[in-house]
Amino acid sequence: MSSRVSTGIEGLDGLMNGGFQQGKVYLISGEAGTGKTIFCLQYALAGVAQGENTVYVSLDEKPRHLVEDAESLGWDLKKYIGEKRLIILDVTPYFTNIRAGREKSVDVRVLASDLAKQIERIKATRLVIDPIAPLIFGQEGAAQVQEYIRSLIFSIEDNLKCTTLITSGIPSGTFRLSQYEVEEFVVSGIIVLGVSHLQGRRIRILYIRKMRGTPIDLNDHAFEILPQRGIVIRETV
Amino acid sequence: MSSRVSTGIEGLDGLMNGGFQQGKVYLISGEAGTGKTIFCLQYALAGVAQGENTVYVSLDEKPRHLVEDAESLGWDLKKYIGEKRLIILDVTPYFTNIRAGREKSVDVRVLASDLAKQIERIKATRLVIDPIAPLIFGQEGAAQVQEYIRSLIFSIEDNLKCTTLITSGIPSGTFRLSQYEVEEFVVSGIIVLGVSHLQGRRIRILYIRKMRGTPIDLNDHAFEILPQRGIVIRETV
Amino acid sequence: MSSRVSTGIEGLDGLMNGGFQQGKVYLISGEAGTGKTIFCLQYALAGVAQGENTVYVSLDEKPRHLVEDAESLGWDLKKYIGEKRLIILDVTPYFTNIRAGREKSVDVRVLASDLAKQIERIKATRLVIDPIAPLIFGQEGAAQVQEYIRSLIFSIEDNLKCTTLITSGIPSGTFRLSQYEVEEFVVSGIIVLGVSHLQGRRIRILYIRKMRGTPIDLNDHAFEILPQRGIVIRETV
Amino acid sequence: MSSRVSTGIEGLDGLMNGGFQQGKVYLISGEAGTGKTIFCLQYALAGVAQGENTVYVSLDEKPRHLVEDAESLGWDLKKYIGEKRLIILDVTPYFTNIRAGREKSVDVRVLASDLAKQIERIKATRLVIDPIAPLIFGQEGAAQVQEYIRSLIFSIEDNLKCTTLITSGIPSGTFRLSQYEVEEFVVSGIIVLGVSHLQGRRIRILYIRKMRGTPIDLNDHAFEILPQRGIVIRETV
Amino acid sequence: MSSRVSTGIEGLDGLMNGGFQQGKVYLISGEAGTGKTIFCLQYALAGVAQGENTVYVSLDEKPRHLVEDAESLGWDLKKYIGEKRLIILDVTPYFTNIRAGREKSVDVRVLASDLAKQIERIKATRLVIDPIAPLIFGQEGAAQVQEYIRSLIFSIEDNLKCTTLITSGIPSGTFRLSQYEVEEFVVSGIIVLGVSHLQGRRIRILYIRKMRGTPIDLNDHAFEILPQRGIVIRETV
Amino acid sequence: MSSRVSTGIEGLDGLMNGGFQQGKVYLISGEAGTGKTIFCLQYALAGVAQGENTVYVSLDEKPRHLVEDAESLGWDLKKYIGEKRLIILDVTPYFTNIRAGREKSVDVRVLASDLAKQIERIKATRLVIDPIAPLIFGQEGAAQVQEYIRSLIFSIEDNLKCTTLITSGIPSGTFRLSQYEVEEFVVSGIIVLGVSHLQGRRIRILYIRKMRGTPIDLNDHAFEILPQRGIVIRETV
Repeated sequence: MSSRVSTGIEGLDGLMNGGFQQGKVYLISGEAGTGKTIFCLQYALAGVAQGENTVYVSLDEKPRHLVEDAESLGWDLKKYIGEKRLIILDVTPYFTNIRAGREKSVDVRVLASDLAKQIERIKATRLVIDPIAPLIFGQEGAAQVQEYIRSLIFSIEDNLKCTTLITSGIPSGTFRLSQYEVEEFVVSGIIVLGVSHLQGRRIRILYIRKMRGTPIDLNDHAFEILPQRGIVIRETV
Repeated sequence: MSSRVSTGIEGLDGLMNGGFQQGKVYLISGEAGTGKTIFCLQYALAGVAQGENTVYVSLDEKPRHLVEDAESLGWDLKKYIGEKRLIILDVTPYFTNIRAGREKSVDVRVLASDLAKQIERIKATRLVIDPIAPLIFGQEGAAQVQEYIRSLIFSIEDNLKCTTLITSGIPSGTFRLSQYEVEEFVVSGIIVLGVSHLQGRRIRILYIRKMRGTPIDLNDHAFEILPQRGIVIRETV
Repeated sequence: MSSRVSTGIEGLDGLMNGGFQQGKVYLISGEAGTGKTIFCLQYALAGVAQGENTVYVSLDEKPRHLVEDAESLGWDLKKYIGEKRLIILDVTPYFTNIRAGREKSVDVRVLASDLAKQIERIKATRLVIDPIAPLIFGQEGAAQVQEYIRSLIFSIEDNLKCTTLITSGIPSGTFRLSQYEVEEFVVSGIIVLGVSHLQGRRIRILYIRKMRGTPIDLNDHAFEILPQRGIVIRETV
Repeated sequence: MSSRVSTGIEGLDGLMNGGFQQGKVYLISGEAGTGKTIFCLQYALAGVAQGENTVYVSLDEKPRHLVEDAESLGWDLKKYIGEKRLIILDVTPYFTNIRAGREKSVDVRVLASDLAKQIERIKATRLVIDPIAPLIFGQEGAAQVQEYIRSLIFSIEDNLKCTTLITSGIPSGTFRLSQYEVEEFVVSGIIVLGVSHLQGRRIRILYIRKMRGTPIDLNDHAFEILPQRGIVIRETV
Repeated sequence: MSSRVSTGIEGLDGLMNGGFQQGKVYLISGEAGTGKTIFCLQYALAGVAQGENTVYVSLDEKPRHLVEDAESLGWDLKKYIGEKRLIILDVTPYFTNIRAGREKSVDVRVLASDLAKQIERIKATRLVIDPIAPLIFGQEGAAQVQEYIRSLIFSIEDNLKCTTLITSGIPSGTFRLSQYEVEEFVVSGIIVLGVSHLQGRRIRILYIRKMRGTPIDLNDHAFEILPQRGIVIRETV
Repeated sequence: MSSRVSTGIEGLDGLMNGGFQQGKVYLISGEAGTGKTIFCLQYALAGVAQGENTVYVSLDEKPRHLVEDAESLGWDLKKYIGEKRLIILDVTPYFTNIRAGREKSVDVRVLASDLAKQIERIKATRLVIDPIAPLIFGQEGAAQVQEYIRSLIFSIEDNLKCTTLITSGIPSGTFRLSQYEVEEFVVSGIIVLGVSHLQGRRIRILYIRKMRGTPIDLNDHAFEILPQRGIVIRETV
């Protein structure tokens, strides 16, 4: 039975029987600006703090910007990078061929192979892919996309042996959870971040949409983003 | 006339004239995380407990993870697997060609043939296909897809002689029951799992959408997922 | 002027000036599980009971399952089949080529020809096609589909000389009446079956959407499905 | 300035400055079963009654069925047909090539030419095309369809010199007025028939959506369909 | 700085800092029958009345019908046409090739060239294109359409030197402002005409959606269409 | 860590920890007429006023019209243009090939190169691209578009070294934030301009949708557009 891995989010582990299941893949889903990247950084840093090294694949933000964002919350990523406990992987090289119009999609086997090497290099047991969509588009035809996503997630579980968070940016105004509508069924759990209303004000909320093998509370939980502490869960709404 | 086969869900058989009709195919439909797989595991285990062996085809979860999920509820699948009363079929080999881009769809005749062998091997009378979509995509053109689904379901009825549950993952934010909108008309019954609101809280609900040859209560029934007992139906809402 | 043909549904003839117009084609429309097949079986049996023989073309259910469903309501179809007053047509052979990928659509001329023979064989004056969609898909291009449906319905009227019910399964969550959006304009009438809410409970309802040459009550009528009597209309809601 | 032509609908002329403008084209729009064909029959008969002969092109109903529908309201079309004051044009021959798959669309020039001959034959000054969609589909590409509709309507105005009603069947559940979304802008006026709710009951309503050169009341008007009188406008709702 | 050009609509100039900016292009948007053509006629006539000659390109209505519609409001267009202060351009010749299927789109350079000649002929400083969509469709591919619209509007500004109104017919039931969703961003301003509800009745409303370089009141303004005066703005709702 | 760059909008810097982060790219999003261009002009002028030169790429409005719009608010762009502290880049030449149908998309490398030269010429540290969509369409296939947008935004950050605003015009009636649904995830922040209702009146609102590395208030802020001061934030609503 998988042991549990702390999410690093104050108030969340208790809602999830202690945290994520080791070695499984989880989807962090939400519209732009809802806190997905902060969630993942917090997860990464909580891991590093307790000896679980992390590889962070950042596709929407340059590694140096991610470091700056973390700084704004008082988190020092550079220290952990220097200590080789955290790698923020620069994925730009893998996309060069697409940008040049020479290729239609990322050569995922190359990327996966390098990813495995990085994980091996620092013996990482946590992995973040933020977001996962750029690794998927360009695949031919709907059937291959669905199968591709299944095998991508299965192979992350089988080969990379990390407790993995993948993020999904949901375009505003839709009620979807994932871009290809298949990730949500293959992952072991889904946490959704959003913005809701309470007494006329907008508040940040998180809820646990799905968590295999774990009894969950389905309701919305209001949270704040605070310096140093990051995402802190407040009350259930 | 078909005899009835217990669903294995506390409180449900009574809403369905005793259970499913033997040898028919039923659709368990619901968004991600609503309990479709737990429903199917419970159905499988109830069957095994009363001498009805089961083949479980799991497409979104690796067999070993399914075993772990069951463990979290206190169910020991390994015992039944050891006693050859339950087979959890590993379907990865059938999808290798798609992932490699060599094929557009699963070679269903091969899969069906192997499925028949597994069923024969343990004399199974219950079958679960969770979910059914991966067996369908890749078929050419809308007409063939519709006909393919019809013949797939008809041939499960005709050749495999099991009381079968197929699951359909409905993307969030839609009100559909099935992915191809034809399964829902061909199956003998549909049970929908979901999440609803009651007095400001989210609750889990189930309702019987359709059940041929059976008078049904159309209303929502709140349920809980409890250790050991799994899905337990509470009140009608 | 067409004479009237009883619908066989308690409480409905009175809402429709005595029933259907002889020789015309009517659409019975509704989502999965709303009672379309029971409606058609009741219509067929009412006809047979008064000397109007019926051919029933069942596309979503195997003939033997249809017989079983009827049994669950206490109706004995086998007796009428034996007396050659009811034929349940097994359409599987017409779809073999599609399933094998050799054809794109049903060879409707062959099917129509055999249908005419069956009707002639028992001098049927009632016909049910449940559902009609499988006979339509696969036709090339939108224009041909629309024209195909028109000519299909016109030729049923002209050649088969039966009072005909065709059913249309409407995918959940849409508000459509027919799949191709043209059947609803060509048929002589439309009855819609559905599920509605009354004082917090789900109830079954039926309403008459359209009925050429007949003054109608447009409102919803609640109904029940009872043993022996089948669909029985209760009050107007 | 165009003189006015009575609509034939009790209570409607007064809402439209006396009726339709002579020689113009009007759209009668509505979902299935809302009374479009009754409206057009009433218009035709009112015309014939005052010496305005009418050609009625019926595409969704066989001419003999149209005659029967009229009979159900107590209207005798056969008399006027015999007196050569009304022609119900049988359009089946124009569609033979489409049904046989030899053509993609109606040869409109042939149809228009025959139409002109029929109009000339009885010196008709009223024309009904019910519905207009079958004359449009099959045209190549969106631009040609839009232009085709424009020229079709312009040429009806220029060449046929009749006050013309064209009907548009709107698929249920949409809020459109016309199928190609261009007819509504080219015609001189639009009357919409529908079903609405008043104090919990469904009622039939009509409203004037557009009427060039005529001040109009935009509100819904409830109506009934009565024997002999046909559509009779009641109150404004 | 552009000087202001009166809209010709009672009550509107004051909401727009005196009117339209000279030489700019404005979009008048609204569903069928909301008054777009009346608005444009009023604009044209107000201009002519103060010495600003106008070319009116009418695509959905024949010039002679436009004259009749104006007559119904008591406006005599023929007088101004005779005095060569107003030209209603007959565009049928430009569309002949499309109707004959020989071309996919209007040869806009020819039309623009003739338009320029007409404007020059009467030294027009006001232009109306009602509606603009027929000049756009048929262009190849989405990128060219967007660029085509941009250049069309830019070249009207650059070459034709008129204060121009273009109209956009919005299909009912959508909430769009323009057909190609790019006109609304390129024009200097947008006025929307519609129908709304006030205390259970339908009323005509107009609102200023956008007006570059001009402070505006965003609210709905109820209006009436009166003889002689045309559109008259009443109260803000 | 990036230093902060004033937005130039009264009341906004305080909601964003002092303003934009230097060198990052921000999305200003909103429907037609909501104030995006005024926002950008204000940003540009605030920069110029404090020694930060600006290049303004205007795609929906001709440079001279932009100057006029600014004048209507009392802003004198010509002065700054003369002092070579502001460049309004005329992009028409880059689009000539598209309009002529010779190319499918803008040659972005040429445009980017010229942009870099202009920025270098006046040592600009602020950049506005209003709107960004015309630079994107025409790219082949969805995968390239997504990758193209990523690389476009990354290369603006890497090569142009300006604090950049890009605008996105959202078609009315949708709830989207960006046209291609990927910009919103790649930019460092998003400000949305809109129109809302307060006590029955329409009011202008702005809200901060996302701001990496900055704690934000998610609520709507009402604003006005005033002479000289431009956009001025009033109260939170």
